[in-house]
Amino acid sequence: MTGLRAVALGGGHGLQATLGALRTITDDITAVVTVADDGGSSGRLRRELGLLPPGDLRKALTALAGPDAWRTVFEHRFGGTGALAGHAVGNLVLAGLLEVLGDPVAALAEAGRLLGVTGRVLPMCTEPMDIEADVTGLDEDPSTVRRIRGQVAVATTPGRVHRIRLCNARRRGDLPTACPDAVTAVRDADLVLLGPGSWFTSVLPHLLVPELHDALVETSATRVVVLNLVPQAGETAGFSPEQHLDVLCAHAPGLRVDAVVADADAVPTPDRLRRAAGALGARAWLDSVTNAATPERHDPAALGATLARAIAAVRAR
Amino acid sequence: MTGLRAVALGGGHGLQATLGALRTITDDITAVVTVADDGGSSGRLRRELGLLPPGDLRKALTALAGPDAWRTVFEHRFGGTGALAGHAVGNLVLAGLLEVLGDPVAALAEAGRLLGVTGRVLPMCTEPMDIEADVTGLDEDPSTVRRIRGQVAVATTPGRVHRIRLCNARRRGDLPTACPDAVTAVRDADLVLLGPGSWFTSVLPHLLVPELHDALVETSATRVVVLNLVPQAGETAGFSPEQHLDVLCAHAPGLRVDAVVADADAVPTPDRLRRAAGALGARAWLDSVTNAATPERHDPAALGATLARAIAAVRAR
Repeated sequence: MTGLRAVALGGGHGLQATLGALRTITDDITAVVTVADDGGSSGRLRRELGLLPPGDLRKALTALAGPDAWRTVFEHRFGGTGALAGHAVGNLVLAGLLEVLGDPVAALAEAGRLLGVTGRVLPMCTEPMDIEADVTGLDEDPSTVRRIRGQVAVATTPGRVHRIRLCNARRRGDLPTACPDAVTAVRDADLVLLGPGSWFTSVLPHLLVPELHDALVETSATRVVVLNLVPQAGETAGFSPEQHLDVLCAHAPGLRVDAVVADADAVPTPDRLRRAAGALGARAWLDSVTNAATPERHDPAALGATLARAIAAVRAR
Repeated sequence: MTGLRAVALGGGHGLQATLGALRTITDDITAVVTVADDGGSSGRLRRELGLLPPGDLRKALTALAGPDAWRTVFEHRFGGTGALAGHAVGNLVLAGLLEVLGDPVAALAEAGRLLGVTGRVLPMCTEPMDIEADVTGLDEDPSTVRRIRGQVAVATTPGRVHRIRLCNARRRGDLPTACPDAVTAVRDADLVLLGPGSWFTSVLPHLLVPELHDALVETSATRVVVLNLVPQAGETAGFSPEQHLDVLCAHAPGLRVDAVVADADAVPTPDRLRRAAGALGARAWLDSVTNAATPERHDPAALGATLARAIAAVRAR
C-alpha cells in the first residue's frame, strides 16, 4: 500500500506490535506515544530530570529502526547494582536529547535520524502526564470507589478500573495539551490504529487529550482498533474482548470505528464481540494474527495482512 | 597535505587541541587515547561497570565530529543532584557500546559512525590502566619517595612527580598490552604527535606501553612533541618547557624526535629549550600557536600551520 499514511497510537510492547505490522504494508508511519509512564528507568529519569518518560518513546523508535548494532545498544540495559542499573542506554540518550534540544519533537527527530528510523515517533503530549483511575474492589465494601494515581499503580491494582483521567504532571489543574504534530498526523492520516496494549494506561490516554480526541473523531482516516491477545493482570484482569470496546466507548462516546481486529483464539464469544464492534460502527475481523512459535505476541506479517484486508474492505464500501 | 597519515597520542583537552589542528591539514587522523582516568564521570563508570574510562575517548570523538546537534548532546552533562549528575551523555553511550560490542575498537568505530567522525579514535590499551607515580616532597624529609596511585591522585599531588608506571587495572602484575590497531597506526603513520596535555597522566603513559613504545621508536613517521602553554598545577607545577622534554627522555630513552613545537610566549629561555630539543634530535619551533582571544588554548589553524611547516622542513632534509 504505497503511500498509505498510517498513525499508530499507544505505548510499550503493544505499540511495537502495530509498528512492526505497519512496516509490512507502508513506509509512512507515525507513532504517537503515551507519556504517562512513571515506573522503572523511565520513572527514575522523569523524577530526577523532570523530562518526558523516555521508555515508550525508545521502544517505538527501535520498532521503526534498522537492525544494526546501535539499535541493540539503544535497547541495552545496564546491569549490576550501581546508580545506572536498569537504565536503558536509549533512555539516557533520549534524556540528553530532551535536555539539550528542549523541544521533544526535535529531540525525537534527531533520535530517529541516529537510528535510521522509517517514519517518525511523536509524543502524545509535549509534557509528562499522570494517570488517575477510579477503582473499586479495594475495600470491604466492593462499591467504594478509590482514586489511584500513577501508571504503575493503575496497571497493577488488584481492584477493578472503571475510568481514567489524565493530569498534566507539571501543572496539576491544566488540561492535557496535545503535541500539535500528533494532531496534524491523525487528521492527515489514511489509517489510524488504537491498541493493542495496556488498555487503561497505554491505549485510552490518547482519547483523554482533548485535541487528540477531536482529531481522532473527525479524521477521514480508516480507524482500526486492535485488541489484546490476553487480558492484562491488574488493569484488565477478567475483561472480555467486548468489555475492552465498552470502556473505549465510555471514554470517547463520539468515536466511530471502522474495524476491530482480534485474534480468533482470543475471542471466546465471537457474536458478542461482533455486536460490540457493530455498536461502534465497526466490522470485527477475527483472524489468526499470531504465529505458533510466539502465540503471546502479534505476528507482524499476519497482523499486517489483516490490516491490509480491513482497509481494502472499508475503501470498497 | 592530502593523504598525510597523522596519529595524535594523548588525552583530554590537549588531545582535542592537536586533533583540531590536524583537521586543518589532513583528513586521515587517528587519535590514540590514554585509558587511565579514574576521576569524575569516567571514574564512576569505570568502577561501576568495569569498562575503559570513556571520558577521554569521548573528547577525542567530538574533536573529530561534525558540528551538529548530536555532538552537543554527546558532550552534554546531566545536572542536578541525582544518580546521573555529572555524567556526560557520550560517556553513557560509550559505556553501552563497550558493554554490548565488547571490543573497544568496534565500539569506537560505531560511535565514530554515529558522530560522523573524520578519522578514528582508538584506545591506547584495550583494558583500563592505573597510573602509579614516584613522588617526593610529601613528607618532612623532602627526599622521601612515596608511591601515589591513580590518575586523579597523581594529577593533583602537591609533591613533585619523578617517574610514573602503568599497571593493568584488571590484572595488577601484567604489563600493559597495546591496542593492536594503535600500534599499526603508529607504524604506518607519516606524522605522530605527542602532547600537549597533562604530561605525566596523559602524554607519557603511551610510552610505557611496550608495543606502543617500540612502534613510536621505530616508526618512519615524523615525530613531533607539542609542549603545553602553561605548567599544570599539581603534576608539573614549576616545570620549565625543557624539563618536560627531560622527563619524556627519562621515560623513553630510545625515542628520537624531529620537531618540538612550543608557543614562543610560553618559553622563558629559548636557548635552553633548543638545547633540550637538540638532545632528542629535534629542531625547536617557537611560534605563536594561540590567538589573542583564547591565549590559554592552542589555536587550531595556527598550530596546524606550524605543524605543516615543521613536517615540510623535516621532509626537505
